[in-house]
Amino acid sequence: MFVRPPAEIGMAEQDVDTPALIIDLDVFEANLAHMAETVRSLGIAHRPHAKTHKSADIARRQVAAGAVGQCCQKVGEAEVLVAGGVQDILVSNQIVGQRKIDRLAALAREARIAVCVDDAQNVADLSAAARRFGTELDVLVEIDIGAERCGTMPGAPAVTLAQQVAAAPSLTFAGLQAYQGRAQHIRGHGERRQAILHAAKLVRETVAALEAAGLACRLVTGAGTGTYPFEAETGVWNEIQAGSYCFMDADYQLNLDADGEQDATFRQSLFVLATVMSRPTRDRAVTDAGLKAASVDSGLPRPAGLEDVTYVGASDEHGTLTLGPRAPELALGQKLRLVPGHCDPTVNLHDWYVGIRNGTVETIWPVGARGAGF
Amino acid sequence: MFVRPPAEIGMAEQDVDTPALIIDLDVFEANLAHMAETVRSLGIAHRPHAKTHKSADIARRQVAAGAVGQCCQKVGEAEVLVAGGVQDILVSNQIVGQRKIDRLAALAREARIAVCVDDAQNVADLSAAARRFGTELDVLVEIDIGAERCGTMPGAPAVTLAQQVAAAPSLTFAGLQAYQGRAQHIRGHGERRQAILHAAKLVRETVAALEAAGLACRLVTGAGTGTYPFEAETGVWNEIQAGSYCFMDADYQLNLDADGEQDATFRQSLFVLATVMSRPTRDRAVTDAGLKAASVDSGLPRPAGLEDVTYVGASDEHGTLTLGPRAPELALGQKLRLVPGHCDPTVNLHDWYVGIRNGTVETIWPVGARGAGF
Repeated sequence: MFVRPPAEIGMAEQDVDTPALIIDLDVFEANLAHMAETVRSLGIAHRPHAKTHKSADIARRQVAAGAVGQCCQKVGEAEVLVAGGVQDILVSNQIVGQRKIDRLAALAREARIAVCVDDAQNVADLSAAARRFGTELDVLVEIDIGAERCGTMPGAPAVTLAQQVAAAPSLTFAGLQAYQGRAQHIRGHGERRQAILHAAKLVRETVAALEAAGLACRLVTGAGTGTYPFEAETGVWNEIQAGSYCFMDADYQLNLDADGEQDATFRQSLFVLATVMSRPTRDRAVTDAGLKAASVDSGLPRPAGLEDVTYVGASDEHGTLTLGPRAPELALGQKLRLVPGHCDPTVNLHDWYVGIRNGTVETIWPVGARGAGF
Repeated sequence: MFVRPPAEIGMAEQDVDTPALIIDLDVFEANLAHMAETVRSLGIAHRPHAKTHKSADIARRQVAAGAVGQCCQKVGEAEVLVAGGVQDILVSNQIVGQRKIDRLAALAREARIAVCVDDAQNVADLSAAARRFGTELDVLVEIDIGAERCGTMPGAPAVTLAQQVAAAPSLTFAGLQAYQGRAQHIRGHGERRQAILHAAKLVRETVAALEAAGLACRLVTGAGTGTYPFEAETGVWNEIQAGSYCFMDADYQLNLDADGEQDATFRQSLFVLATVMSRPTRDRAVTDAGLKAASVDSGLPRPAGLEDVTYVGASDEHGTLTLGPRAPELALGQKLRLVPGHCDPTVNLHDWYVGIRNGTVETIWPVGARGAGF
């Protein structure tokens, strides 16, 4: 329920208890610096998504590097971020249900809070709660630009909803949420770009229709780690939400760059540290990191820096490795780093980040919003 | 990190905040009673696996129903169970690493603790720690009877290791851990039974070889919800470890009984309660329960009791439903129950169980060992 940290500051990485979520701090900081420099040169704002890291410690570092604030998906995440000092938050999601809406409206006493809508009744509910709490909420209309998940249709339906927002007491129409989630993991660079260029057309038309109706978009926000250069290129978005860039994962590393090579813009900084707990045969090693240590929804973890070692099966508490002829010995008790298949749900399995530099534990940060699902 | 409960005792299920892990208490209690009656009639002991529920509240109820104690996989789970009053625990797993071994040895001051081994050095490490802490550990030799994960080979290698255990100070050789994990989800009743009958031959031969070497097996333990009647039938095992029976999941419900029908011995008592948070189109509803609310390693969740509604996609915080022509309306804000694909890793995503009876919240139990991965 509330687990002690698996490490102490100053200990060697090899002494960290496992499974543990570790951050290579040099790579992590380089990822933050590279993104900060990139968005400056692109002339666009960056509001990193905290659904990836769920950590006010990381959020504050992103803001210090130039980010305008944070995105999150859940009211509970927003509460943790505000308590940790983040002053400008976009809940890039619909918040439905009286209890949640009340908490969101109350939170706007302490920070600038924006939220997304795709339904007129939800607009009315948000307005009523904000009035009751004496607060103001920024509201973005979410449009579906190809993800086929939430959001109104672009164009006229978005304008109608924006007008309802603009007319609602205690709400301010703040712009459009336009995120093409399905494009993030299209492997080919050209196909991925095309998906965003297609989406941009829908966003541009919607912005124009809103302007024709007298509604200015302060924010046009969206984009992820897989596509943000394309959103920036279109000039339609003025804010990007990329979050995974700080950690990366095995799935994102399958995306290709313009030369058809593995895109190496950001490097892997997040790992699940595991221990070899059984060596039953010459070609099999079993680690203590299974389904409860790394989410497998986007594929199995990948051992880092070990030749000819493959993670072939995850059960609840075990990860089975197959060792090929060129594999290292992997003795019982040996520690190894695993690259998680998907960083966001993997982070949500852990209570602590263990930050490593030069083989030593330098920092321990809580995953403050772990489990903050509502 | 430490999340408030999503409910209060006495509130209606419809008012529980979501996503929430709910237990249908009538079904849960019927599952416990049915298993207790079954193991009594089979003349076998039951040591339910706490890796499923991670809860001392549930463990105590299982013990009250006749269970001899609990299994778990991690030292952290054992600590939570002992603190919650469980007095007899088998860690059905190898514990490797000084820090973990020390905690395990220390815990044996407070409860009877057994642990599994498949390596001679690990036997020596356990012995040294138990001596240092002035405790005694029961030790089982794990044999691989077809799961191809941990464990020594049956027969002579198991005897050698058992002799090492028997000779080690502060350790008692307690028997065999023999779990055929791969057989649990073989769909056909006959094929599943055959896998266990094959495994039983290996266990029987190993027990005989141990006896020939003067080593009696107090415990021959294993079996899961998918196979325990077969282990009992062989007369080789004297203890079963079935754990999922108390909750069930979508994956276990695909197992067939002897008539080729869905096995209905145990009914679904565990659900993820979700809210419809977006209704963008006539045939699509989006819920607030995605990858961080239900583990999808064994398949997507299944909406319970809703005709023609299919959960078709899980993203981090969203679950997308497709509504067919006969589907109910599913208005924005409506709550629905989802059957998780796999109960164990789903439970590990939540901090609280919300126990429901007759539509009302009757109990709230912590998932006390959630995240206790080390």
